[in-house]
Amino acid sequence: MTGSGRAELRLRAIGAVRCSIREPVDLDWGSVESRVVLDPEYRAGLRGLGEFSHVLVVAWLHGAAFDPARHLVRRPRGLAEMPELGIFAQRAKDRPNPIGVSVVRLVAVEPDGIRVRGLDAIDGTPVLDLKPHFPAFDSPEAPRVPEWALRLMSGYF
Amino acid sequence: MTGSGRAELRLRAIGAVRCSIREPVDLDWGSVESRVVLDPEYRAGLRGLGEFSHVLVVAWLHGAAFDPARHLVRRPRGLAEMPELGIFAQRAKDRPNPIGVSVVRLVAVEPDGIRVRGLDAIDGTPVLDLKPHFPAFDSPEAPRVPEWALRLMSGYF
Repeated sequence: MTGSGRAELRLRAIGAVRCSIREPVDLDWGSVESRVVLDPEYRAGLRGLGEFSHVLVVAWLHGAAFDPARHLVRRPRGLAEMPELGIFAQRAKDRPNPIGVSVVRLVAVEPDGIRVRGLDAIDGTPVLDLKPHFPAFDSPEAPRVPEWALRLMSGYF
Repeated sequence: MTGSGRAELRLRAIGAVRCSIREPVDLDWGSVESRVVLDPEYRAGLRGLGEFSHVLVVAWLHGAAFDPARHLVRRPRGLAEMPELGIFAQRAKDRPNPIGVSVVRLVAVEPDGIRVRGLDAIDGTPVLDLKPHFPAFDSPEAPRVPEWALRLMSGYF
């Protein structure tokens, strides 16, 4: 018992991703332009966001399904040249809780949501939260990543 | 109807924060050292995380309660010198979905979890996910933030 408890925690989407990408891929997300359309009752919450250049999009990875036997430890994308890694050392979608966090370029704030570039989420992905990117929170100085991570991410954006 | 649907989405904590801070504060989190203790079935998922210098901790903000009338648009921390801002332009805890994302320094990977520095979460906070910080994902170049944001964050870390 670690104290985390076993309670079920409940969320509701605040909106959804709209874009031209219908199938998950691992390439070239950097140029994708998407909209995050918010449900009407949340749109007032966008006030002031346009002063930021980047936004964290917290998404529900609705296509994911976590199977501990297959996903708790695996090689990223199943590639033989990658090491065996725990899911918490990866950004793969099949996670114990299917929550994605993506930092994207804010293109525009619109009446019903936002327009962004570089969001790696397919059309229809439910969105749980939007947060402004604060460098003091979110961009540490001189982060270190392993060599495999650089190889893996080549071409993703 | 934006297509986000109304389905309830369900999560379970994978572990919890252990630290010496028992009450929410808005100051000096940068020096706080915390542990994230994982439930036993998830500990294998830490393999390889130690090669990264920074980790995203996705937490359930269990002390939060979102009231649209009070929190959808407000002045950060209720300060008169701050502008009125939507919740999606803020990192305040009282959000439609109480999910926190904090980038922290990884101090050590331990048998039952991780030791980190700079996690702005009180003792007992449920943790939903851990992700490695990938600069290519998470640290955009030349991010822009409004002037009020710099004033607000002074002293937080």
